[in-house]
Amino acid sequence: MSGATTLPGNERGQVARTVRGRSLSLVTGPTPGLASLDGMETWDAIRARRNVRSYDDRSIAPEHLDRILEAGRRAPSASNRQKWDFVLVTLPDQLQELSTVWVGASHVATAKAAIVLVLPEPESERYRTIDQYDLGQATMVMMLAATDLGIGSGHSAIGDQEACRRILDTPADHLCAYMIALGYPADDP
Amino acid sequence: MSGATTLPGNERGQVARTVRGRSLSLVTGPTPGLASLDGMETWDAIRARRNVRSYDDRSIAPEHLDRILEAGRRAPSASNRQKWDFVLVTLPDQLQELSTVWVGASHVATAKAAIVLVLPEPESERYRTIDQYDLGQATMVMMLAATDLGIGSGHSAIGDQEACRRILDTPADHLCAYMIALGYPADDP
Repeated sequence: MSGATTLPGNERGQVARTVRGRSLSLVTGPTPGLASLDGMETWDAIRARRNVRSYDDRSIAPEHLDRILEAGRRAPSASNRQKWDFVLVTLPDQLQELSTVWVGASHVATAKAAIVLVLPEPESERYRTIDQYDLGQATMVMMLAATDLGIGSGHSAIGDQEACRRILDTPADHLCAYMIALGYPADDP
Repeated sequence: MSGATTLPGNERGQVARTVRGRSLSLVTGPTPGLASLDGMETWDAIRARRNVRSYDDRSIAPEHLDRILEAGRRAPSASNRQKWDFVLVTLPDQLQELSTVWVGASHVATAKAAIVLVLPEPESERYRTIDQYDLGQATMVMMLAATDLGIGSGHSAIGDQEACRRILDTPADHLCAYMIALGYPADDP
């Protein structure tokens, strides 16, 4: 994988932006005092979460993106294998491209960020379903962490694997499984 | 399916206990004033969640079990199909039996309850992985709802399908996919 960086699930404290050969920005943890990380009660977040596919123009603070990714890193996985890469995409051009990889992904074009969940080829057939289950757990906790910060999320399948691998510069033996679009809700969903 | 009752994902307001031909208890929603539903901040719940496999003797209030199941019902699923049954098991004999269906499920024997995630045969191959992803989402939000109430959760795969279907009286074309054991942590996990 050249020119892009992904975040291994077991590597803590760094958020890597995918850049496809252009530039690389590493956020090494939340910067206190920039954006509030105050949230809401758990049950309120569970009830407030909606699939949000229409976003306003506000960008998402890096420390908020980091918080959401940190939630994903805390998700459980079979034997704690953490067989996932969470690829954070924030470049508008890349978000536009990602919106074309699935018929139900048009909302990604106007999102302020997307987290693409990338799966390596499993070491045995047994993990082919279990890894999907684990991605579901990681997805849910990231969406709740987003809700907690007032950020809307809308996830999507990925159909065109070739296109998604090209956009993210992902190895051919990795599956672009799902993506979570992020942005402030344009209206009350 | 005779003698047991499962809770369809899209049927709200009722918690069905599986009983395997013995008795049937329906909890039709939380009973105010019995057990507190006060919780914690979302980020605290996300950080506090651990896989808990050792439980003390306290039983779980029905309104807490209902809250946890309600969280699962609120989980998103592909096209909102909610292709799942959440089967709540609280009988000690059944929990003991369920602890034998997978090598990593021994903790279920001392849990105070378990929620078994049962999947019907998917309508197309495409959903075979997507439904697993959706079960992961439902699992995560139920575990966080449990954490929010101070209740520990530890999930497990299910190996012996025949045994699990017999214990729950589940149809042969349904998969006993995972179970979530619940109980108050015996010690700080």
